[in-house]
Amino acid sequence: MPQNDTVNRRIVLAARPRGLPTPQDFRLEEAAVPSPEAGQVLLRTLYLSLDPYMRGLMNEIGPTYAPSVELGGPMAGGTVSRVVASRHPQFRVGDLVLGSAGWQDFALSDGKDLAPLGEMAQPSLALGALGMPAFTAYVGLLDIGRPKPGETVVVAAATGAVGAVVGQIAKLKGARVVGIAGGADKCRHAVAELGFDACLDRHDPQLPQRLAAACPDGIDVYFENVGGAVFDAVLPLLNIGARVPVCGVIAHYNDDTPPPGPNRLPLLMGDAVQKRLLVQGFIVLDHYADRFDAFRRDMSQWIAQGRVKPREDVVDGLENAPEAFIGLLEGRNFGKLVVRVAAA
Amino acid sequence: MPQNDTVNRRIVLAARPRGLPTPQDFRLEEAAVPSPEAGQVLLRTLYLSLDPYMRGLMNEIGPTYAPSVELGGPMAGGTVSRVVASRHPQFRVGDLVLGSAGWQDFALSDGKDLAPLGEMAQPSLALGALGMPAFTAYVGLLDIGRPKPGETVVVAAATGAVGAVVGQIAKLKGARVVGIAGGADKCRHAVAELGFDACLDRHDPQLPQRLAAACPDGIDVYFENVGGAVFDAVLPLLNIGARVPVCGVIAHYNDDTPPPGPNRLPLLMGDAVQKRLLVQGFIVLDHYADRFDAFRRDMSQWIAQGRVKPREDVVDGLENAPEAFIGLLEGRNFGKLVVRVAAA
Repeated sequence: MPQNDTVNRRIVLAARPRGLPTPQDFRLEEAAVPSPEAGQVLLRTLYLSLDPYMRGLMNEIGPTYAPSVELGGPMAGGTVSRVVASRHPQFRVGDLVLGSAGWQDFALSDGKDLAPLGEMAQPSLALGALGMPAFTAYVGLLDIGRPKPGETVVVAAATGAVGAVVGQIAKLKGARVVGIAGGADKCRHAVAELGFDACLDRHDPQLPQRLAAACPDGIDVYFENVGGAVFDAVLPLLNIGARVPVCGVIAHYNDDTPPPGPNRLPLLMGDAVQKRLLVQGFIVLDHYADRFDAFRRDMSQWIAQGRVKPREDVVDGLENAPEAFIGLLEGRNFGKLVVRVAAA
Repeated sequence: MPQNDTVNRRIVLAARPRGLPTPQDFRLEEAAVPSPEAGQVLLRTLYLSLDPYMRGLMNEIGPTYAPSVELGGPMAGGTVSRVVASRHPQFRVGDLVLGSAGWQDFALSDGKDLAPLGEMAQPSLALGALGMPAFTAYVGLLDIGRPKPGETVVVAAATGAVGAVVGQIAKLKGARVVGIAGGADKCRHAVAELGFDACLDRHDPQLPQRLAAACPDGIDVYFENVGGAVFDAVLPLLNIGARVPVCGVIAHYNDDTPPPGPNRLPLLMGDAVQKRLLVQGFIVLDHYADRFDAFRRDMSQWIAQGRVKPREDVVDGLENAPEAFIGLLEGRNFGKLVVRVAAA
C-alpha cells in the first residue's frame, strides 16, 4: 500500500535484534494521520534516510548521542518532508524541510528539529551528499585526517554514503586514494566514476597483500568506518604520523559479544607508540555549529562542478525500509541508501 | 669487580630474549679502555639509565626510532658520564655530560650525542626527573592529555619514572589524580609523598570496581604507559572527549605472540566513536627541539619548589644492570631506576 492522505503507516521496533536484525524485528503499523496543535506542523515524509548508526538505536542501551528506540515505538531516522499543515508561524504548507520524522508517512513537529531546504532539484541529497553522511566525511577527513598532497588515503565502504565522499574530497586535496569495497562493480565505480586511484574487493582473501601492493608508500590517513578485517589489513601499513579518524565500525554493530582472539588491542597500542598514530573517534552531531556552513558551501560547489558525484541507492516504499536497512548492514547497498516514501 | 681505570667492562646482548629476558641473555665482557682520536672524548660512565624501551632494542626487529642492539654488541642506554680524556675542542676533562654510552664503563664519543650538564648536585636526575622519562610525562600529559582543572587523570606505574611525574604535574594543573601501582608501599608513597588523590594496587582482583569507585566522575585523561589489564579497567570509565596519550605498553613488551582473545580492539574503536576519544601515541625523541627547553625550565622550578619530588631507585654496580633491568620489566623498581656505575 503506498502513502495516502488518511493513514499514517509507520514501522516500529517489534523486537530488539540479536546480531543482524531480521524482518521480524520490525512491524508495520497503521494509525490515523495526526493533526497539528498550535505551534506544530504536520509533515509528510518524502525521503527517509537509512544509516548504519540506526543499528545502535535498536539496542536497549543505545549510543551516547541519541536515545534508544523504544520497543513498539517508531524507528528513528532523518527525513526530507513536505509541510502539509501548519500551525507554526515559521513554516508554510508546501515547505520542504529536513527533519527527523522517522520511519513513517506523517509526523508532527514543533519545528525545533527542522531545517528549511528551499526548493531543491534533488531533495534526497539533503540526506546524503549535502547532509549528515557527507558532513561526516568532510569533518573526519579534513579536521582529523588532514591529508596532504601526495599522501595516501585509504577508505573502506568506498562507494557508501560516507566513503565515497571521503575519497572524492581526498582526491580534491591532492592525495592518492585507495578504496576498499564489496565486489567488482563497486570497485569499478570507485575508480572509473569517483576517481579513486585504486579500489580493492574486501572479499578478496589476498586483501592484506593487495592493499600493501596498492599502497607502496604506506598509508597516511585511514578513514575508519568499518573495522574488522579491513582495519587488520590497514594497521601494518600505517606510516609514522598516520591519522585514523573513526566514525564507526559497522563490521561490529551486530556483535553480541567481543569477537574471538587473539586480542589485537595491544598490537594497536604498541603500533600507536611506534608510529605516533592519532586515532580519534568523532560524532558528527558535535560539529554542526562550527563546521556545517563551511561544508555546505564547499560541497555545493564541488557537486556543481562535478568534482563530487553523489550516487544514491533509492528504494521505493516505506514498507521496504526494513529489508533495505538489513541490506545496508550487510553492505548490499550501492551508494547512499534512501527510501522514497512518497513522490516529491 | 668495580670500575677501574684500565678495564672497560661492558654488558653485551648474548641472546635475543623470548618473552621476559633472563640473565643468560646478557654477558659481561672486559676489554681495554679505548683512547680517543682527534675529535673524540673518552667518557667514564657514572650513571646508566634503565628504561622499558630497551626491551624493544633487544629484538631482531627493533623499534622505529632507534636501531636494535646487535647480538654480541653492547646494550644501548642513556648515561651521565665524566669526560676523562678529550681531543675535542668543546669538551674538557672533568666535564659532566649527558650521553648514550650504553651499558659500559667507558666509551668514546665524537660529541654529537653529548649535552653538557654543568655541575649538578644530583647528576642522575638528568636521566630521570630532569631527563627523558619526565620529559615524556610532560609532553604526553600537557600536549596530548591537556588536563583541565577538576578533571580526573589516571596513570599507571604511578611511582615509576614517568607515572610519578605525570601525576605530580597533573596535580599542579588542578586535576584529580588516581594512580595505579604495584603494591601497598608504592600506593602509600603515591598518596602521601607525591600528593595523588588515590592510588590502587594493580594486583587487586577488584581493580575494575575500585577504579570505578575512585573515579566517580569518570576519567578524562588516561596516560597509557602499561597496557594490559589496567587499560581494560580504564576503558569503560573514560568520559566523552577523553584523551589517551600512549607512551608505551610495558605489559606487552615481552609478548611473543598476540595475547589470547577475546579481541578487544573493536571495543576500543566502538568506544572511540561513542566517546569521541583521542588516542595518540608519541615518541619523546620527536619533541626535544620544540619542547625540551620549556620542560627543563618548568621542571627545574617545580623540583626546586618541592612541587615535584623525584624518587630514584639506585642500583650499585654495572654488573647488576641485567638483574635490575629484568626487575624493571616486572615492576620491581620503586622510582626511576638508575645504575650507579661509578662514584661521581
